[in-house]
Amino acid sequence: MTLPHVEKHFAGGQKVRDIVIGMSDGLTVPFALAAGLTGAVAASNIVVVAGLAEIAAGSIAMGLGGYLAARSDAEHYASERVREEVEIKEKTEMERQEIVEIFESYGVAAEASAPLVTALEKNPESWIDFMMRFELGLEQPDPKRAVRSAATIAASYVFGGLIPLAPYMLEKNAHSALLFSIAITIAALGVFGYIKGHYTGAPAWRSAVQTMVIGSVAAGAAFGLARLIS
Amino acid sequence: MTLPHVEKHFAGGQKVRDIVIGMSDGLTVPFALAAGLTGAVAASNIVVVAGLAEIAAGSIAMGLGGYLAARSDAEHYASERVREEVEIKEKTEMERQEIVEIFESYGVAAEASAPLVTALEKNPESWIDFMMRFELGLEQPDPKRAVRSAATIAASYVFGGLIPLAPYMLEKNAHSALLFSIAITIAALGVFGYIKGHYTGAPAWRSAVQTMVIGSVAAGAAFGLARLIS
Repeated sequence: MTLPHVEKHFAGGQKVRDIVIGMSDGLTVPFALAAGLTGAVAASNIVVVAGLAEIAAGSIAMGLGGYLAARSDAEHYASERVREEVEIKEKTEMERQEIVEIFESYGVAAEASAPLVTALEKNPESWIDFMMRFELGLEQPDPKRAVRSAATIAASYVFGGLIPLAPYMLEKNAHSALLFSIAITIAALGVFGYIKGHYTGAPAWRSAVQTMVIGSVAAGAAFGLARLIS
Repeated sequence: MTLPHVEKHFAGGQKVRDIVIGMSDGLTVPFALAAGLTGAVAASNIVVVAGLAEIAAGSIAMGLGGYLAARSDAEHYASERVREEVEIKEKTEMERQEIVEIFESYGVAAEASAPLVTALEKNPESWIDFMMRFELGLEQPDPKRAVRSAATIAASYVFGGLIPLAPYMLEKNAHSALLFSIAITIAALGVFGYIKGHYTGAPAWRSAVQTMVIGSVAAGAAFGLARLIS
């Protein structure tokens, strides 16, 4: 292939993106829920039950959601490709004109893009691929991605969610457990944010602080709300 | 603009996508959590407290997450654009060669893309825009999107999450409330899935069934797990 930037961007990006999606919610929501419940109940066991129920629900909802999203991306690509193929066959002149227009929007005159149109016409398969990417902005999705994506998101969610819950499993008094939970979760959010920043190209320290702030705000709001209404 | 397909795809898609993101998790996770807790406790008030804490936590985590994701998209675009600008100025020959290679991967010979290269060179701003989209596959993000995206996701999450909780607010016995909660949430998931399918172009009935299945599986797993450990 001759597009190294894009290819690289895609292969590593997908897996990291799935881990980030699962882990950021997994670390944040069960943490905040546990903190919130601690504002209303004193016994750790209720918090553990609620937390594990949340982890089960959240990981399944996100994993299945990710699976279906990836599959619907693949289907969308396939159906648009069929449509493009038909259009090229039946409305050839219009599709030719579309190529010219794409380049005109970049200040390229029709005469300069004409040889390109002629070259694409000789190879209809390439023409379709070209229209998919350059007219519609769609990349061909990896067919195996759906299942892998679902599993990665769900596993990351479970892994992230067990961190804030661990103290409640070990300490019967929910209020004491909360302090440990806050300490290890904020630390975990910081480490996660730092690594995430490193992989996504954002400044790592800023990413660490942002992730800790999101977790703290969510947990604080859940705690305050639960205390208020109970 | 001369790219109506892409433009249309983007403008409507973003808002719908944010509502779908917020609402699918909002309908599913609080529903499953409430069902799960009902497997362990008999009083609705604990379920309501946990559910509202979850809604607060989930909407903030997803909303802030969406805000930061949109902002980091915008920053990524800006930094890549600067890099592309420098490359075009300093490694002009290499960038010229990259255009040729992009088209070669679609079976277009170097001679056919040469006039295009010449035309782009006359207008460096368009050349940068061209490389952003055609080499890197990046679209310019709307700068106002971050805040709007966050608000839409969070509001959809809250709206979705209050539906499964409503019965618990009205009925003190959690087990009776669960039955109502299942009924209205499965119905809401079906309606939501149907509308979602309509907007995203998937078959509406299949989308409705899928959404109901995800919600039911998540809720069933949470219920089973909570019952098992309590």
